[in-house]
Amino acid sequence: MKRLTKQFQFNSAVLAVSLMMLTTLAHAQSDPLPSWNDTASKKAIVEFVELVTTPGSPSFVAPAERIATFDNDGTLWAEQPMYFQAIFIFDRIEELAPHHPEWKEKEPFASALRGDRKAALSGGVKAILEMAMATHAGMSTEAFGQTVMEWLDSAKHPTTGRRYTEMVYQPMLELLDYLRANGFKTYIVSGGGIEFMRPWAEHVYGVPPEQVVGSSIKSTYEVRDGQPMLMRLPEMNFIDDKEGKPVGINQHIGRRPIMAVGNSDGDFQMLEWTTAGDGPRFGLLVHHTDNEREWAYDRESHIGRLDRGLDEGPKRGWTIVDMARDWGTVFPPQTD
Amino acid sequence: MKRLTKQFQFNSAVLAVSLMMLTTLAHAQSDPLPSWNDTASKKAIVEFVELVTTPGSPSFVAPAERIATFDNDGTLWAEQPMYFQAIFIFDRIEELAPHHPEWKEKEPFASALRGDRKAALSGGVKAILEMAMATHAGMSTEAFGQTVMEWLDSAKHPTTGRRYTEMVYQPMLELLDYLRANGFKTYIVSGGGIEFMRPWAEHVYGVPPEQVVGSSIKSTYEVRDGQPMLMRLPEMNFIDDKEGKPVGINQHIGRRPIMAVGNSDGDFQMLEWTTAGDGPRFGLLVHHTDNEREWAYDRESHIGRLDRGLDEGPKRGWTIVDMARDWGTVFPPQTD
Repeated sequence: MKRLTKQFQFNSAVLAVSLMMLTTLAHAQSDPLPSWNDTASKKAIVEFVELVTTPGSPSFVAPAERIATFDNDGTLWAEQPMYFQAIFIFDRIEELAPHHPEWKEKEPFASALRGDRKAALSGGVKAILEMAMATHAGMSTEAFGQTVMEWLDSAKHPTTGRRYTEMVYQPMLELLDYLRANGFKTYIVSGGGIEFMRPWAEHVYGVPPEQVVGSSIKSTYEVRDGQPMLMRLPEMNFIDDKEGKPVGINQHIGRRPIMAVGNSDGDFQMLEWTTAGDGPRFGLLVHHTDNEREWAYDRESHIGRLDRGLDEGPKRGWTIVDMARDWGTVFPPQTD
Repeated sequence: MKRLTKQFQFNSAVLAVSLMMLTTLAHAQSDPLPSWNDTASKKAIVEFVELVTTPGSPSFVAPAERIATFDNDGTLWAEQPMYFQAIFIFDRIEELAPHHPEWKEKEPFASALRGDRKAALSGGVKAILEMAMATHAGMSTEAFGQTVMEWLDSAKHPTTGRRYTEMVYQPMLELLDYLRANGFKTYIVSGGGIEFMRPWAEHVYGVPPEQVVGSSIKSTYEVRDGQPMLMRLPEMNFIDDKEGKPVGINQHIGRRPIMAVGNSDGDFQMLEWTTAGDGPRFGLLVHHTDNEREWAYDRESHIGRLDRGLDEGPKRGWTIVDMARDWGTVFPPQTD
């Protein structure tokens, strides 16, 4: 009997410890946003998701209407020291230069080839578009996608040495997963090139090609030697930035999102359009405040300028994420 | 013991009958396309779907890649005596005429207002676009969607007296359901207006707004009295027909479909693009051969002309549906 009691006590102790471990585990598993610190931003996100997904609640939103749109540059991945697509353009110019001897005498290509990227960009939007056209058109969409993937496979970020697809924000990967686990359809709505993002957005963000909205050049359907292809033309089709974002959202999605996430004044209209709808809405702006783990920039920055959003966002009920304060981790672990 | 045996025999008989009934029921339930006659077309569809959905088969296609695109006019709903959207345009011209006294003197509006729709259409694409712009622009996307829904609520087809949303093809509703039940994502890819289809495509076809691709006019984002809106402009944005269909598919979906369904030479390039991809592919053209239950037209028709598709389709392995032969039912039961 005594032995049995001891055995029982031992079993009870094992059981108690096991239960404690299970509880800890359950708690860890039940936190869908482990890289977010327990601050007001995280609380606001979780409250919103619970609000719209609680059946029977007056704020319940049917799964089909749970559309969340995310900017990419500076929101899902970093954008310093310049947009990664701009670095891709410069790398392509160097690679294509042997086929374009005229570039040595022609701006902005001449500056780009001398390595003076700042000078190459000094021509503003016109210069950037000229370089984008020269490097993004004149090939099929398939060939372009392959070029992007080859570049991402080898290129490294100039200051961190990481691959660009490892310069994504871990808290945002968790937010995307969390939303999808709650029946949301997650979209990218970016000023970047739609065909630049599509080849890797599914693998990196879990966002399939049909849920990527971006800027685009025109393309044309041709049959060459019996082989149909979509050829990319050096002509702008759509600029998915500022006032263009609600337009792009309507073109592609045809519903107003209930949640929009961005980081710059280029996202202002997307958040405005989203949060002006009826019922519960969520606007979120990432404020880059962390010069230790990432970069700190806002009102005066040429890239990802955030000025109006900082002034008006809080009044409009938008959540401003302070990266230094709200994010426990910024980047995912490096894989090699 | 004898009693038990009798009871057993009785039970066995009940069981046998029940099993027979269940088998019959299962068979009835297992026919996903009851409005399709048991002809080669139906067989080809079912074989294709089984081919791409059988796990472990070398022809297996992952659900994410199971994209099927459907033309609308003449494929999902009828298009005679003219595109239903053209009837909507004419009805709108009559309704808006009091606000446009100048239309009485101005073609093609003057002919339209005299009821001479043929004369109004004689100006070709230019005249149609002019009438479309005059009736589809100058309002918000929301207001336009409401106008479409109000029209569909009251308008009746000139020869059948049915609502236009009851002029859809029952076999196609079944095909859409069957594909979705097998993990396909079904899209509309139509020359018709994207905003004309979106308000009702989900209810009628089970196709949500984000899976509707169509022709479009430009729109612009504006904030009026603090209220953001998307205003429709009288300027073409994209014509989703012929060579435009693969371009529209790429813009919106970013993947090549594995199945495309159409009915006219305006769908030729969509089927060509789809079936030129690697692995199993399915192209289907509806041939309007049924002058009793619907309309019979093909090579010489101004609407839904099918000429090249009839010649080249079979050589390319596309399935040509003979409506009179292949469809047991054409339209769903009328609801009022």
